[in-house]
Amino acid sequence: MRRVAIVAGGLAKFGVRQASYRDLISEAGKACFDNAENVSPKDIEGYIHSSTMPERFAFQTHVAPMGAETLGIKPSKMIQRVENLCASGSCAIRTAYMAIASGVLDVAMVLGVEKMNMPDPIEGFLHMAAAPDREWDSTQGLSAPGFFALVAKKHMREYGTTEEQLAMVSVKNHDNSTRNPLAQFTKPVTLEQVLGGRPIATPLKLLDCSAMTDGAAAIILASEERAREMTNKPVYIRGTGQAAGGNNLANVLGWTTWPALKTAAESAYKMAGITSADVDVAEIHDCFSISEIIEYEDLGFCEKGEGGSFIAAGKSGYGGEVVVNSSGGLLGRGHPFGATGIAQALEIFAQLRDEAGDRQVPGAKIGLTHNLSGMSTEHTILIYGRDQK
Amino acid sequence: MRRVAIVAGGLAKFGVRQASYRDLISEAGKACFDNAENVSPKDIEGYIHSSTMPERFAFQTHVAPMGAETLGIKPSKMIQRVENLCASGSCAIRTAYMAIASGVLDVAMVLGVEKMNMPDPIEGFLHMAAAPDREWDSTQGLSAPGFFALVAKKHMREYGTTEEQLAMVSVKNHDNSTRNPLAQFTKPVTLEQVLGGRPIATPLKLLDCSAMTDGAAAIILASEERAREMTNKPVYIRGTGQAAGGNNLANVLGWTTWPALKTAAESAYKMAGITSADVDVAEIHDCFSISEIIEYEDLGFCEKGEGGSFIAAGKSGYGGEVVVNSSGGLLGRGHPFGATGIAQALEIFAQLRDEAGDRQVPGAKIGLTHNLSGMSTEHTILIYGRDQK
Repeated sequence: MRRVAIVAGGLAKFGVRQASYRDLISEAGKACFDNAENVSPKDIEGYIHSSTMPERFAFQTHVAPMGAETLGIKPSKMIQRVENLCASGSCAIRTAYMAIASGVLDVAMVLGVEKMNMPDPIEGFLHMAAAPDREWDSTQGLSAPGFFALVAKKHMREYGTTEEQLAMVSVKNHDNSTRNPLAQFTKPVTLEQVLGGRPIATPLKLLDCSAMTDGAAAIILASEERAREMTNKPVYIRGTGQAAGGNNLANVLGWTTWPALKTAAESAYKMAGITSADVDVAEIHDCFSISEIIEYEDLGFCEKGEGGSFIAAGKSGYGGEVVVNSSGGLLGRGHPFGATGIAQALEIFAQLRDEAGDRQVPGAKIGLTHNLSGMSTEHTILIYGRDQK
Repeated sequence: MRRVAIVAGGLAKFGVRQASYRDLISEAGKACFDNAENVSPKDIEGYIHSSTMPERFAFQTHVAPMGAETLGIKPSKMIQRVENLCASGSCAIRTAYMAIASGVLDVAMVLGVEKMNMPDPIEGFLHMAAAPDREWDSTQGLSAPGFFALVAKKHMREYGTTEEQLAMVSVKNHDNSTRNPLAQFTKPVTLEQVLGGRPIATPLKLLDCSAMTDGAAAIILASEERAREMTNKPVYIRGTGQAAGGNNLANVLGWTTWPALKTAAESAYKMAGITSADVDVAEIHDCFSISEIIEYEDLGFCEKGEGGSFIAAGKSGYGGEVVVNSSGGLLGRGHPFGATGIAQALEIFAQLRDEAGDRQVPGAKIGLTHNLSGMSTEHTILIYGRDQK
């Protein structure tokens, strides 16, 4: 298998944007090419577009050719969109990775975008009802906050996790995003503010939940040989894994342990030739504060049930065992579905190149991204390294 | 690069179906496993779901995990949806191909589905307006019949192609689908019926246009080693190519010649080590009768401008130079967007295994599929062989 590296990337400002779906594509793509050292639009042979439901949010399907046209690139070897709800971005990166690793192409751009804020916010929430299984769950009223609230209650009962510990995840990630000018939320929040927030689905309060975000992110990947021509600091994909559990609520494989996450992580660690202890910096899927806590456990950063004390002891912060969500994560940076996985990769790309500015994790050599979809339905992991092995 | 083969496949009946999106998935998946020789659901490591706009037609996104769950498979290495409008199916096959060729997985199922007929047909047509570029074209009233009618008029003027020749494509493909019990249209049509049909967009009449179709199709792909364990008659992917032109109407690269099709075909022929003359049987994208005529030319089956006389001389029928759309094609078999590319592969799979029954092309050894999207925006080619080379 050929080695593959990220060689460039760029982000559109995340937030509630007065910008169209197309504007966001353009902004992220321009940032990506502006940041690139020795890559131009004519080098792009493949274009993979990540987006969850532009058919509803933007009344537009067939978004890959539209994206390529907006960016001024003419893919001569591959073009398609990838969708996997909140994990679309990581799946799109994996698609480009496999296309390059297999030899079908040498250079690909991956761009993720979602325009989620509608003129009438209610319209956006209605579209979100297309995400859970319609026949089994959505028409019964299930939504993501409801599911993750149930998970949180069960984790609290089984392991003694507290609302304060949940809130600490939000405080940490909002603090990190104060140093990320492209984040949706750039003001710090206090423990009291999180705990005193409006209830969304008990025990989750407003700041335990990621927001509706408009945003886009783009990266360029290349084969090892081309990567070295394009930059002095390529960031290599060293491993990846993905697995699926049940989709509808009746088939969820685990509540406080996510077996598909463990399967995906084991595959990725094995492929990368590392263990969880080797990870210096990680962007993981904190769609709700409870999910980050369970992910500490199932990724192997701590033992099962100890996620609450892991955050409380500062082990996922700067100076801790692994810096988690230095970008601000989904809670701080924001969560435009199709863009999130690519924004995660961008943060790791910056960290492993020593270009993360005020957010830099000193000496970071190995980075991990974790992206989940739906009711913890499927989990996607990528592991990156400064070096090939 | 590892070699990849199709080892099994199955189709749900195409047509106006009293069946849900989920029912169609189930029907195609069951047919696929029922037809398989030595493959079971537990062998499936990866699941690639192809669908164009279930967000609108079925109010459902995140369709890949829903599909896997419906089929009773638990992908442990890969799961995602691929979208590229009418070419989604071929892009999904390519994704599985690259995943297996790169070594990420050994066995994948690819399933395509679309539920396009709504209780109120007008609703279905409204959803279709999400396909062209919304800002530039769709809001100006552009639709696929309008575009392909302009193409037909220009081809008629430039090359003397006649309405009778367009109609002959429809007559041939409807004749072929009389021998395909799973096709949407199983009755023959006469030249007089096509020519006397209701005008849709002059010069295209009703039977020059593919219909709104509900349907699904599934195939299983495996690495060469696993493929040989699973069947005595694997059908190998020998080559593939894809390229994109402009998306919105102002940027269309060519009207009566499609440069992206030529680029994609050249890549695929080169990779397969063949020329167009080696193709015995081809499933090509006859969304409208004119498109099949242009594809004869740009695939190299005949010279530019001679597509009309190629069909008139019977060169694309049984006993001709290359049997085109033995399944009935999009005009006869039907065109459920996300399923079409996979149904094309299934027909080639049957032909190269001598299992096409009354539609069998004697001694077919090399098959080709061509799948386009949008306003001839991008073109995807796959070439299959009984043998590896």
